[in-house]
Amino acid sequence: MVFILKSGLSEATIKAFSESFERQGFSTIISKGTEHTAVCLIGNTASVDMDKIVATSGVVEYARRVTEQYKAVNRTVHPDDTIIKVGEAEIGPDTFTVISGPCSIESEEQIVEVAKSVKASGAKLLRGGAFKPRSSPYSFQGLGEDGLRMLSTAKKETGLPIVSEIMNQTQAPLFEDVDIVQIGARNMQNFDLLKEVGQMGKPVLLKRGLSNTIEELLMSAEYIMSSGNSRVILCERGIRTFETMTRNTLDISSVIVLKQKSHLPVIVDPSHASGIRSFVAPLSKASLAVGADGLMVETHNDPAKALCDGAQSLDLKQFDELMKELKRRAPLENRKI
Amino acid sequence: MVFILKSGLSEATIKAFSESFERQGFSTIISKGTEHTAVCLIGNTASVDMDKIVATSGVVEYARRVTEQYKAVNRTVHPDDTIIKVGEAEIGPDTFTVISGPCSIESEEQIVEVAKSVKASGAKLLRGGAFKPRSSPYSFQGLGEDGLRMLSTAKKETGLPIVSEIMNQTQAPLFEDVDIVQIGARNMQNFDLLKEVGQMGKPVLLKRGLSNTIEELLMSAEYIMSSGNSRVILCERGIRTFETMTRNTLDISSVIVLKQKSHLPVIVDPSHASGIRSFVAPLSKASLAVGADGLMVETHNDPAKALCDGAQSLDLKQFDELMKELKRRAPLENRKI
Amino acid sequence: MVFILKSGLSEATIKAFSESFERQGFSTIISKGTEHTAVCLIGNTASVDMDKIVATSGVVEYARRVTEQYKAVNRTVHPDDTIIKVGEAEIGPDTFTVISGPCSIESEEQIVEVAKSVKASGAKLLRGGAFKPRSSPYSFQGLGEDGLRMLSTAKKETGLPIVSEIMNQTQAPLFEDVDIVQIGARNMQNFDLLKEVGQMGKPVLLKRGLSNTIEELLMSAEYIMSSGNSRVILCERGIRTFETMTRNTLDISSVIVLKQKSHLPVIVDPSHASGIRSFVAPLSKASLAVGADGLMVETHNDPAKALCDGAQSLDLKQFDELMKELKRRAPLENRKI
Amino acid sequence: MVFILKSGLSEATIKAFSESFERQGFSTIISKGTEHTAVCLIGNTASVDMDKIVATSGVVEYARRVTEQYKAVNRTVHPDDTIIKVGEAEIGPDTFTVISGPCSIESEEQIVEVAKSVKASGAKLLRGGAFKPRSSPYSFQGLGEDGLRMLSTAKKETGLPIVSEIMNQTQAPLFEDVDIVQIGARNMQNFDLLKEVGQMGKPVLLKRGLSNTIEELLMSAEYIMSSGNSRVILCERGIRTFETMTRNTLDISSVIVLKQKSHLPVIVDPSHASGIRSFVAPLSKASLAVGADGLMVETHNDPAKALCDGAQSLDLKQFDELMKELKRRAPLENRKI
Repeated sequence: MVFILKSGLSEATIKAFSESFERQGFSTIISKGTEHTAVCLIGNTASVDMDKIVATSGVVEYARRVTEQYKAVNRTVHPDDTIIKVGEAEIGPDTFTVISGPCSIESEEQIVEVAKSVKASGAKLLRGGAFKPRSSPYSFQGLGEDGLRMLSTAKKETGLPIVSEIMNQTQAPLFEDVDIVQIGARNMQNFDLLKEVGQMGKPVLLKRGLSNTIEELLMSAEYIMSSGNSRVILCERGIRTFETMTRNTLDISSVIVLKQKSHLPVIVDPSHASGIRSFVAPLSKASLAVGADGLMVETHNDPAKALCDGAQSLDLKQFDELMKELKRRAPLENRKI
Repeated sequence: MVFILKSGLSEATIKAFSESFERQGFSTIISKGTEHTAVCLIGNTASVDMDKIVATSGVVEYARRVTEQYKAVNRTVHPDDTIIKVGEAEIGPDTFTVISGPCSIESEEQIVEVAKSVKASGAKLLRGGAFKPRSSPYSFQGLGEDGLRMLSTAKKETGLPIVSEIMNQTQAPLFEDVDIVQIGARNMQNFDLLKEVGQMGKPVLLKRGLSNTIEELLMSAEYIMSSGNSRVILCERGIRTFETMTRNTLDISSVIVLKQKSHLPVIVDPSHASGIRSFVAPLSKASLAVGADGLMVETHNDPAKALCDGAQSLDLKQFDELMKELKRRAPLENRKI
Repeated sequence: MVFILKSGLSEATIKAFSESFERQGFSTIISKGTEHTAVCLIGNTASVDMDKIVATSGVVEYARRVTEQYKAVNRTVHPDDTIIKVGEAEIGPDTFTVISGPCSIESEEQIVEVAKSVKASGAKLLRGGAFKPRSSPYSFQGLGEDGLRMLSTAKKETGLPIVSEIMNQTQAPLFEDVDIVQIGARNMQNFDLLKEVGQMGKPVLLKRGLSNTIEELLMSAEYIMSSGNSRVILCERGIRTFETMTRNTLDISSVIVLKQKSHLPVIVDPSHASGIRSFVAPLSKASLAVGADGLMVETHNDPAKALCDGAQSLDLKQFDELMKELKRRAPLENRKI
Repeated sequence: MVFILKSGLSEATIKAFSESFERQGFSTIISKGTEHTAVCLIGNTASVDMDKIVATSGVVEYARRVTEQYKAVNRTVHPDDTIIKVGEAEIGPDTFTVISGPCSIESEEQIVEVAKSVKASGAKLLRGGAFKPRSSPYSFQGLGEDGLRMLSTAKKETGLPIVSEIMNQTQAPLFEDVDIVQIGARNMQNFDLLKEVGQMGKPVLLKRGLSNTIEELLMSAEYIMSSGNSRVILCERGIRTFETMTRNTLDISSVIVLKQKSHLPVIVDPSHASGIRSFVAPLSKASLAVGADGLMVETHNDPAKALCDGAQSLDLKQFDELMKELKRRAPLENRKI
């Protein structure tokens, strides 16, 4: 059950209203929109007389039952689109924000070169993997802490905010300088890690698991939000099907579903979704057209020598071409790049 | 193995070259492109000395081994895009051709009204189901022969070429006035029906089966082409996955794969792919952006009362809006609508 | 809605009861069980006063609403297991009936040799493909009518009833001597073919499609039963998943679902489900243990030279070994082999 | 590349042989079988002259190239079946070991009652969840450390070794008294956790992820083994497909694949695979018949009131019935229960 409050209420009034329910044994989530604040009750609300509260509380504009299991991420609870600001970057309904960089950070030279180039092409954030989840224990596992240091250097040299994947709770202290913490597909239901990043006070980029449903993705976002962090970015990166000609199957419709069901921004990762370099540009254009709020695209200064996922990485020139194509199309979708 | 012949050869020369292989026990497929004709050998070509033939035949420009099982549909055999003309409509690389109409033909008034409206909005072909494959024997099975007559009336009144689904071989005579014969998803591997439509002398719209791979779709197209019909349009209409928030999962990447592997035109059916009306416009725009050659979109004059698939049908005004959105975007993709 | 009638009623009484509903616009299905006959109404039964009819008709033992879309195949309508007798073979709850033979009939010698051998080992029916659905038009398509003649010869020489796949409606006359008509996985939703075999007056072996749900399989069986043929055998043969180490994924749980939801017999095809010879025996034993009513197993006199599916075919000795293993286990499951 | 050594070699000889490769830059895995020890090289072995080493080293019986990415878990490297002993329980080719207990530990009374009962019925190990991965943050998350204490009490009172799921690395110290550490399906590719349990010195029960391939399961086992722990039990628990009548789809064929590719024991979890109580017994019997080495079955003293997964839990009497059925069948499969 969610109460959308009247506008202009004081913090104290809102808190008092919320606490009146906590005294009855409910958990509450307070969600602040542009104009209205909402108070969402978690628990068995069958016995709550919603209409009476609307009529008598004096602070409620209107109320709704939230039948879905996801509450804080639900658009019913927060009708406006959430906009997430990171440095000068903004991820939300008016922009088409492109995050780019290599699968793995391989050296300081590499990451700085890529960072400068993707920034010049129009990327607003830099990605780079330091801790790599690899299906084989014998594959390159990332540069770890050293990699994060190199990524920080690239941030300093370019001003680009940085995104990197965290693999377990004990790594949290290493991510102090990282602007957006990424949860990878394989950890989408690592619930303890979700709770941890819910308390890190940073935006979280949450990737959909390889065979997780859209509802499960929303429930994982709910884990993060219910731990106190409302800045979650959802990322569609392809699901596993029987089709073998592409690495995964981009579920482009999921972008539409997610934008309808939730207020959180949604981006697409066309690199992992296809696994094939020549697919990245057309899938990126399709993602813009379908209503995504941005992209995460893998680029590399020398894809043929990449330590990881070279076959799906654009080189710097190809990325620049892609950005030009996107810039031509963004105005038609009322998006700034 | 395919021999791309020199340009300007006479029919007789081509035939003689082709027959020289048939005498050795191979089947051959002759494929005519804009500039070059290709002769493709079917059979075990391990013992054929390709280089010698190129060097000595005097008619061969170059030759390639075709490792894929699909030959006639293979882009190696026919490097140019195939363009299919039907009346004034054209399906190919320079156009974005929209086929529209109701799931089921319900009455003459209905189909004529829809036809006039979608034509005015910019559709180039009219679809309408007369024989409906329904999972329940107790569901409406279509108007059958009467339906096809009503569809012909709509064709006469609007000049739009018509598309309708054939369900079995005995129906072929009823499709004389139909311009494009559709093979539905459930019949994609009804091989006897594929052979039959291969001999009907009409373009065929071949829908991908619910869980068929891209390669299987190409092999089904090969059935039609190897029966003598080179005018095949491939249609992605969503595949079955574990996701339940959409009716099917649109495999938008398949458009890219199909255009790379084959020379045949590829269209998308966003109505069946999603099963949800509000998804049709964004998926249509994404299909244009990803490189599809057109769409098949379900429209109805009164979706709430449709006998079939009302939830995914656009009303006539929504379809008109969609066409306007597509027309604004088509020039960026170098497509005419 | 289904009315389970009192026992001992005359045909005329049952017919009169049934027709009283047909006059009101319902279709009816009369289903005869061992002790009770049931009359099932098809149509919108919301306005039918079920309790009143039970109270006043004088012929009804009890009644139930059938909420599922499948009616005639529903266990609610026919609580007893259906037993299908073909010659001396019987497929039902007390037996574990093994159908065996080659993927394709290749010659009279081959099919007769295989028939004699599998009969000696304990198979009760002989299978053999004459019309083969192959994904490539260039693969062996079966011996067709000649193949059926050879199969008939094997039937004459061994007394084994025969099973063969029909691929389209026009072939019906050729199947006169065939005892069980098989609908292949790719034709499970070829609804016109289902209607046709519903009128052939022979038992039908209906294979589950590669990515069809259990409910869709039941609806396809409903097509056959509602066309007048109550002798349908359901066959699980593996579904398509992302797993590539086996040809398909045997959905062994589907046997349990099907036996709960329907009264029809259920068999398993371990050969197509796995595509690997060494998997056939363990999957066969698992099928017996899980409650299947029988198997369809591919055998060949010389698998290495088989024109079709050799990798999954048992040789005659391996089949004999398998039958011995099954015979040892069948008594524990209260089944005769 | 794996070298199977002659029998009767001293530890020192084996170590010297192994170290001769480590000096060349390879990692090595030493795998001890019943009769032979194997030394497996990890790294690029293209330049290693295998035949020369076999001929000249004097300690090698024979050698093989291991083309698969999984090495230590590979049956080529360790041809004998691995047998894992835990207290008096034994998991391997001669036994059919049943692990049972509730989804969640709910109270000391509950877990002790269940433990006594399943032991009397023939279970050899007790399972109980203390840390529960739940898709909703608002669902019961387990009793945590208290739960583990109650489980230890049940172990003390019955002598049954205990199995419980670990959810993150920081919990390792809490699992000191736990005999088998379980990695849940959602953590199958939580690689940091796999490395951690690889160093805990306890057997690990590794569940297959919901949509992971068999090869990925083996690679995850390789993570554990390459971290120094060779006692890994693989568990098939159903995969995600489009079928909705069961919670998951039991991939029973995976048992056969796993036993062929790897030497590790394989058990089945029929409770999660189906999600339906009445499916547990037939799937358990099928698992025994197909060649599994045991089961993990959820039981509860009062399933209707279970805090978690009640619908799939057997009550204590049903479990006892199941064990009787399994005991009747085990001798036919040459297994002791």
